[in-house]
Amino acid sequence: MYEIYAREERAWSPGQKVPVGILGATGSVGQKFVELLAEHPWFEVTALAASAASAGKPYGEAAHWLMATPLPERFARMPVAPCVPDLPCRIVFSGLDASVAGEIEQQFAAAGYIVVSNARNHRFDPDVPLLVPEVNAEHLRLVERQHYGTDASDNAGMIVTNPNCSTTGLVLALKPLLDAFGLEAVYVVTLQAASGAGYPGVSSLDLLDNVIPYIGGEEEKLQTEPKKILGSYADGVIAERDMAISAACNRVAVLDGHTECISVRLRERAAPEEIVAAWRGFRGQPQTLELPLAPRHPIYYFDEPRYPQPRLHRGLERGMAVSVGRLRPCPLLGYKFVALVHNTLRGAAGGAILNAELLLRQGYVQGHAEGYVR
Amino acid sequence: MYEIYAREERAWSPGQKVPVGILGATGSVGQKFVELLAEHPWFEVTALAASAASAGKPYGEAAHWLMATPLPERFARMPVAPCVPDLPCRIVFSGLDASVAGEIEQQFAAAGYIVVSNARNHRFDPDVPLLVPEVNAEHLRLVERQHYGTDASDNAGMIVTNPNCSTTGLVLALKPLLDAFGLEAVYVVTLQAASGAGYPGVSSLDLLDNVIPYIGGEEEKLQTEPKKILGSYADGVIAERDMAISAACNRVAVLDGHTECISVRLRERAAPEEIVAAWRGFRGQPQTLELPLAPRHPIYYFDEPRYPQPRLHRGLERGMAVSVGRLRPCPLLGYKFVALVHNTLRGAAGGAILNAELLLRQGYVQGHAEGYVR
Amino acid sequence: MYEIYAREERAWSPGQKVPVGILGATGSVGQKFVELLAEHPWFEVTALAASAASAGKPYGEAAHWLMATPLPERFARMPVAPCVPDLPCRIVFSGLDASVAGEIEQQFAAAGYIVVSNARNHRFDPDVPLLVPEVNAEHLRLVERQHYGTDASDNAGMIVTNPNCSTTGLVLALKPLLDAFGLEAVYVVTLQAASGAGYPGVSSLDLLDNVIPYIGGEEEKLQTEPKKILGSYADGVIAERDMAISAACNRVAVLDGHTECISVRLRERAAPEEIVAAWRGFRGQPQTLELPLAPRHPIYYFDEPRYPQPRLHRGLERGMAVSVGRLRPCPLLGYKFVALVHNTLRGAAGGAILNAELLLRQGYVQGHAEGYVR
Amino acid sequence: MYEIYAREERAWSPGQKVPVGILGATGSVGQKFVELLAEHPWFEVTALAASAASAGKPYGEAAHWLMATPLPERFARMPVAPCVPDLPCRIVFSGLDASVAGEIEQQFAAAGYIVVSNARNHRFDPDVPLLVPEVNAEHLRLVERQHYGTDASDNAGMIVTNPNCSTTGLVLALKPLLDAFGLEAVYVVTLQAASGAGYPGVSSLDLLDNVIPYIGGEEEKLQTEPKKILGSYADGVIAERDMAISAACNRVAVLDGHTECISVRLRERAAPEEIVAAWRGFRGQPQTLELPLAPRHPIYYFDEPRYPQPRLHRGLERGMAVSVGRLRPCPLLGYKFVALVHNTLRGAAGGAILNAELLLRQGYVQGHAEGYVR
Repeated sequence: MYEIYAREERAWSPGQKVPVGILGATGSVGQKFVELLAEHPWFEVTALAASAASAGKPYGEAAHWLMATPLPERFARMPVAPCVPDLPCRIVFSGLDASVAGEIEQQFAAAGYIVVSNARNHRFDPDVPLLVPEVNAEHLRLVERQHYGTDASDNAGMIVTNPNCSTTGLVLALKPLLDAFGLEAVYVVTLQAASGAGYPGVSSLDLLDNVIPYIGGEEEKLQTEPKKILGSYADGVIAERDMAISAACNRVAVLDGHTECISVRLRERAAPEEIVAAWRGFRGQPQTLELPLAPRHPIYYFDEPRYPQPRLHRGLERGMAVSVGRLRPCPLLGYKFVALVHNTLRGAAGGAILNAELLLRQGYVQGHAEGYVR
Repeated sequence: MYEIYAREERAWSPGQKVPVGILGATGSVGQKFVELLAEHPWFEVTALAASAASAGKPYGEAAHWLMATPLPERFARMPVAPCVPDLPCRIVFSGLDASVAGEIEQQFAAAGYIVVSNARNHRFDPDVPLLVPEVNAEHLRLVERQHYGTDASDNAGMIVTNPNCSTTGLVLALKPLLDAFGLEAVYVVTLQAASGAGYPGVSSLDLLDNVIPYIGGEEEKLQTEPKKILGSYADGVIAERDMAISAACNRVAVLDGHTECISVRLRERAAPEEIVAAWRGFRGQPQTLELPLAPRHPIYYFDEPRYPQPRLHRGLERGMAVSVGRLRPCPLLGYKFVALVHNTLRGAAGGAILNAELLLRQGYVQGHAEGYVR
Repeated sequence: MYEIYAREERAWSPGQKVPVGILGATGSVGQKFVELLAEHPWFEVTALAASAASAGKPYGEAAHWLMATPLPERFARMPVAPCVPDLPCRIVFSGLDASVAGEIEQQFAAAGYIVVSNARNHRFDPDVPLLVPEVNAEHLRLVERQHYGTDASDNAGMIVTNPNCSTTGLVLALKPLLDAFGLEAVYVVTLQAASGAGYPGVSSLDLLDNVIPYIGGEEEKLQTEPKKILGSYADGVIAERDMAISAACNRVAVLDGHTECISVRLRERAAPEEIVAAWRGFRGQPQTLELPLAPRHPIYYFDEPRYPQPRLHRGLERGMAVSVGRLRPCPLLGYKFVALVHNTLRGAAGGAILNAELLLRQGYVQGHAEGYVR
Repeated sequence: MYEIYAREERAWSPGQKVPVGILGATGSVGQKFVELLAEHPWFEVTALAASAASAGKPYGEAAHWLMATPLPERFARMPVAPCVPDLPCRIVFSGLDASVAGEIEQQFAAAGYIVVSNARNHRFDPDVPLLVPEVNAEHLRLVERQHYGTDASDNAGMIVTNPNCSTTGLVLALKPLLDAFGLEAVYVVTLQAASGAGYPGVSSLDLLDNVIPYIGGEEEKLQTEPKKILGSYADGVIAERDMAISAACNRVAVLDGHTECISVRLRERAAPEEIVAAWRGFRGQPQTLELPLAPRHPIYYFDEPRYPQPRLHRGLERGMAVSVGRLRPCPLLGYKFVALVHNTLRGAAGGAILNAELLLRQGYVQGHAEGYVR
């Protein structure tokens, strides 16, 4: 790691924030990274990288800014860099499109960068953690087996991924049930927000007064990713969890927030109040470590039958909590309920930043973490 | 029947259309009845009845007209009658709210009217058919056991109901599968249109940029009504079908058209192309009898994975067909697919009128049916 | 004209429909042409042309079909032709994008085709009519001065345009006022539908829970086109009308139907009931000639203060009528009111077809018009 | 004032926050008051009052909570009081419906309360300020002439109102122009959000895929209120400003944020850059006094032609700033531009609270203001 920066003559001193870059910074996930990192206590955005078409332009001009908070002036003026691994930073957050993310992320890891990616490409690489910190923080140890450098001594680089936005909401809602009662089968139907498709994404002509009952590749992700995330780690290997999952995905006229109708077959008998207690009492490493973006309560359970709703609850705990409600019997599987996750915060950029916070706090930024943080 | 009209001195001659009235005519279902019956070849609207608050006013003033076709002038001028059984008609279509429908419909039946109701109140009365003509036309024979009159000879009145809008779409999609392969379990998650809640119904503040994952009473209807509809008739009794159904219902920002994500466990093995063939080849009595509102094809199967969609397909066959698509394996139950039904046409007023057409064609309008029709 | 078809050996006989082609057939305006012409009594679609990327593919595959009526099978199978002037037809309807329309339309006219265009490129050519048949049918005589062929005898080709969708609604609402009371100034603010931007057009992220108070180039069109359309024709020249127009244009979350808030300063005093009478009594050549797509009443005036509304009234007279309401005093200009026009029907494809119908009926299809029509 | 509380034996000590109550607390404006006052540095909510139907219930049960921030537990448990003037507070914020506000507010003022009202009833009372603090802070002196008590010595009570939400945005955008260049005429067309109609307010069936070009009474307010607000104060009397205003109001499918298309005729010549400078440099008393809810910049001018937009900019400065953009020539009046105001924040509850902050800071809470504030 030091080598990179020595080589580039962009060393930084202990006590500073960790310099971070954003790959795919002009896209909608990239913009959310910019927004969330603008005031981050541990990270300082020092590089904004995007496709060749944007490179060289000031970011304020290259990006069609979509966030509801104004773009800070210092980012508006920052020139966009190309996505090549000589950015002046230690960590890169990747909001790249899957069509290019795989290779570019690999190049950055090989050059010694820590790649914290929201893209799907490396999620199922055996040595790459597919991480939701409250759920499977112990999977982070997989990175110790990663080796992207070109010689044996060069192992500063690594790749850590977060799952699909819908998967994130699902596994957060399932984890307390798995721990307390065991989990045999899951049925999930999603009502997903437009922002999940990026910008411009879904045409208004397809979404006004309409539902699109199909999101390419989404059901496959929901049917596979939870098995890895909820799998068990031992000796550097993840054993996928053996459980049946069926998913059906829909796009609806909502801006942010994926709603999920979920049914579960639990292994053990559980009373409704025990299930609710499991959700309400759930805490994970981000809460213990008090990570900056961690919600105090990862899961909110609502008693009102008409909740949760995307517009009312997606923003809870700055969009990092999952809202759950309507626990009731399912004649087929046992129980059903509704979960809601903010897809671009907890489900994408926010989830990735939480991963990076965990990496740093657990010393994976090669022991220098404390030094970076004021 | 003749007696009623003789008593009321409002006889009509053979060769005329059947005079019909609409109960709850000012509500949104009532308006849809008005719109659909305005040009009906067999029925002539001769009475518009609503609550006491509207009675006496011209219909055009009492109703906040919501249909996209203009209100015909002759209806605009027609005075609204109260919902008491002295309307000048043979059949009454009921779009009444469930809070009052039960008793009023009973009164009309007792007075000798044929009540064709969209309300839920009498759906589970043992002698009342819960009818979707393509699915369970044989249940119509239940009316032969009805007796609402006050003495033994007075049995001109009857009640026939159609199911909840979501149920209608579901059972139409299921019926061909049941017939061809048997059916053991059904899981359905709905994305329902605003018009299903009537007018004013759902506030725009609850539906713009939002999903409401709860519709009071709806899941219970979806979990019970199909069992009666798909049950078997013998000797004047319906034996409910023994099958597990789980339903979860959501309100989404769609004007018309309920989308349903459905999984099924079939009794026998079936190849996807056999299932599609079952849907595409499906016909029922309305098709055989060429009833005026009958769709030529009750079910359309789409090969494009992004179909069906409410805005594009709810209007197929004047809103009387069910659209189906995305047949694919379900890891839990075997197969899953998407169905779409126009909730106010096939699922409400149109379905009720189709019921009345079947009644008339099968001679239940006491043998005088042919006479009424020009 | 005959030459073209002789050369192509695709002659047709009197009594047949006029063969027509569609340029830009895969776009949203092009699709609307396909939908409207599918059952046209005078025209037969014999060619579907689009960009090189689509050429050669079956139309059903090249077009992302957006209409709510199913694509007729015969069009789905028709191979898409490139936009070069050897299409087997007499008239071409142009739904081309303005970036390419200018030159291609010129080429077709030069090759002897009648070009009926919805594109903006030639609207202000001095010899090209900018035509709304109820408003300025006499401008059609401009085509007699057109000469696109390469030698003096070759003047079968011509170009006729219809205005911008918002302009169409505006001038139809203004024309009766101009005729009856004179017109000095117009102020118009539009609330325009998403379909006006084509497909995919406006991103759902820009339109859900939002207004975009800007439509590039639209205000300029609204401030100039009416002056030509409402201008006077004499001796082959249009004298633009001298009147002040100010326009402000907004995009709103509506699928179809542009709403326009209009204020006018009339030259002469007029009572409200005289203005309403002028609108209600208004008729033009399409009504006199009973053109197939002509609305019986070009303008509907509503007394209810909450009307017209896009969802309820855009479809009046198959989308070819303009709805007007809310006439009331304007403290600044004298009167204000609301107008509504269906932007893709009356304001685009439907308006163009009406232009072609007028051309044919007035004998501009070189005297052969009668022969083409069955 | 002291008397009231002595009489009621609910004294409070200097150093505490000012106790405030909310009239109409369960409605949508009332809820916004609750949300905004929950953490206010100067005010403490000590009473929640609503109609008799709600009185006695815990607030969390009586109110259908619509805000996106959770209802604080202490308010959820607070019993709702009836709207009679024995509430334990000094100031009451009124979010009452106009059908009852007039009389109830008068009763509270007569009983010695300071009434800060969002209702329209007293806006045109000659002694009642219609206040937007950046625009006409000097009008506050009108309260010195108010006398609602029953005897000469009893003048602790007063009424201060804020204008209609659209008016607030309009006058804030106009004030800098008036000051710098004079103002002769204003034309405004609004595109208003659903929340302006309260809850449930506008039915989703009226707003999805639709525009309602009519809001009862709204145009009248926009055509009269600015004349009082922009009028001049002298000797206890407001002289209304002499200027022509024409307004047309529309409801669109937006949750929060009214967009206004405005044209102005200025008295003096002004270059565009001078106008923009006037907006950008505008400050008023709330900024000078650094009132808690005051935006640092009351007006933001955007250079991007597609801005401002409700979803992106309504929340600027916690919803208290007005966004302006698209300054360009108007062929009729001289200049036109777009303004945006958050209707429930700056335009309703937030505006009222800012009024109360000004009252307190200017000593109108009878000299005890400093004492109340910690």
